[in-house]
Amino acid sequence: MRPGPEEEAAVRRCRQPIGVFDSGVGGLTVVAALRTLLPGEHIFYVGDTARVPYGGKSAATVERYSIEISGLLLAEEAKLIVVACNTASALAVPRLRELLRVPVIGVVEPGAAAAARATRTGSIGVIGTRATIRSRAYDRAIHAVLPTARVSTTACPILVPLIEEGWLEDDVTDRVIARYLAPLISKRIDTLVLGCTHYPMLAPAIARAAGAGIELVDSARNCAEAVRELLEGEGMSAPSDQLGRLRVALTDVGSGSFLRLAEEVLGLQVGEVETRAVQGVGG
Amino acid sequence: MRPGPEEEAAVRRCRQPIGVFDSGVGGLTVVAALRTLLPGEHIFYVGDTARVPYGGKSAATVERYSIEISGLLLAEEAKLIVVACNTASALAVPRLRELLRVPVIGVVEPGAAAAARATRTGSIGVIGTRATIRSRAYDRAIHAVLPTARVSTTACPILVPLIEEGWLEDDVTDRVIARYLAPLISKRIDTLVLGCTHYPMLAPAIARAAGAGIELVDSARNCAEAVRELLEGEGMSAPSDQLGRLRVALTDVGSGSFLRLAEEVLGLQVGEVETRAVQGVGG
Repeated sequence: MRPGPEEEAAVRRCRQPIGVFDSGVGGLTVVAALRTLLPGEHIFYVGDTARVPYGGKSAATVERYSIEISGLLLAEEAKLIVVACNTASALAVPRLRELLRVPVIGVVEPGAAAAARATRTGSIGVIGTRATIRSRAYDRAIHAVLPTARVSTTACPILVPLIEEGWLEDDVTDRVIARYLAPLISKRIDTLVLGCTHYPMLAPAIARAAGAGIELVDSARNCAEAVRELLEGEGMSAPSDQLGRLRVALTDVGSGSFLRLAEEVLGLQVGEVETRAVQGVGG
Repeated sequence: MRPGPEEEAAVRRCRQPIGVFDSGVGGLTVVAALRTLLPGEHIFYVGDTARVPYGGKSAATVERYSIEISGLLLAEEAKLIVVACNTASALAVPRLRELLRVPVIGVVEPGAAAAARATRTGSIGVIGTRATIRSRAYDRAIHAVLPTARVSTTACPILVPLIEEGWLEDDVTDRVIARYLAPLISKRIDTLVLGCTHYPMLAPAIARAAGAGIELVDSARNCAEAVRELLEGEGMSAPSDQLGRLRVALTDVGSGSFLRLAEEVLGLQVGEVETRAVQGVGG
């Protein structure tokens, strides 16, 4: 018996790529986690480097940018959209879910759920960009699964520039981290959410500063696990004979240093980078 | 005898504002220098905070953004456009001069000229964002006035985030500055150009790290002096009975922390901030 058109569409969909976006190239930490966990999945990644960073922008602007970039991913037949940017996850996921028929997964909910599972004392710390912390998205998402949690948050705006400068194992970076973590440590947190997709690259330094009693929750890795669960649950996983390809597109050139860092530290093979135009950006 | 229409237009023009723009709010250091030097001039400032920073973007994109923002300034009857952003000065001033009939002054040429006047040994250092340093605009502008100069440059991408965090007098900031300046000091520079409009807020810390033998050249102050010369030379200065007003518009909200810093450290009275829409930014 031949498969019907709906079954054919479902089979075709399994081979379609996972669409991933971030304001810049930080979301490549999520891509690295996806590559490890789901090596058979094709991934199409868009970094909106023409308008990076989203972290200081208004909610309306971040929402509009996220919708535009999602359009680029859908044009590449993404079967699922991963918002690999904490700011956009915090501000734009609800609107994307209203507008789009494909599933949308952000980094905030998986990270919050993992923190709620990890904590023993109920005292959880969250670090991220100014916009992510100001949005209180992690507070809400953690309380949704663990209403008794005590959540302490700190914005760490200097960490991304330090990472992009490549100062990963560095006494200056260690001092900056120690200063940012001090108020959280004084609240006796036992779990710390790395609420920015750049931060996994600083995980060893953050773990040293936090000390042995604090468990780090990597929102990139937890996001990748949520993607796997969703694909399996919906029967959308790539067929086992497929070898996943990674394609990377940026909306503006010139983020070479972090791309190189991603290749070195994350072990990602990025290869040739494509470009895509967005509104307000000429060519 | 009544003045003719041309004379009336010239008189009217004197009362028109100076238009100033930057990718963000860093250009307010130029505004502060203009307010001090030219208290009678009206100033209309636009910070393109929806697309800040320009520092990592391509030349074509920076040029396009600069043209768009200049349009906003002309709509407010700017008699002169000041590009208070080193990246845009480095990449977009030639194109703006081709397109616009009003004079255009950037920060690079005045800073370069001041450095060439200040140096005794001919060894000049320049610090700035990655894009400014990569453009080699200061190297070219300094060599245009002092062909024998030896110019050493270093990109300092972490300084702007440190300033925006308000860590102006801080041991972490001192260490970062010391590290960035070390290669310049080893080149025995006697003059250091602060090639980013944010940097004047770190002038005391930079002066300490540089030591007594190195003169700092503040591109914001030198730009303001170039504006005064141009206005006087062209007979475009505000009448002496005029008390200058400052109006600030941003293309997106949410740069509150630096605005507060500008009010505190620069002593600027910013007052109510207007908003202006640019392409690719919804409301």
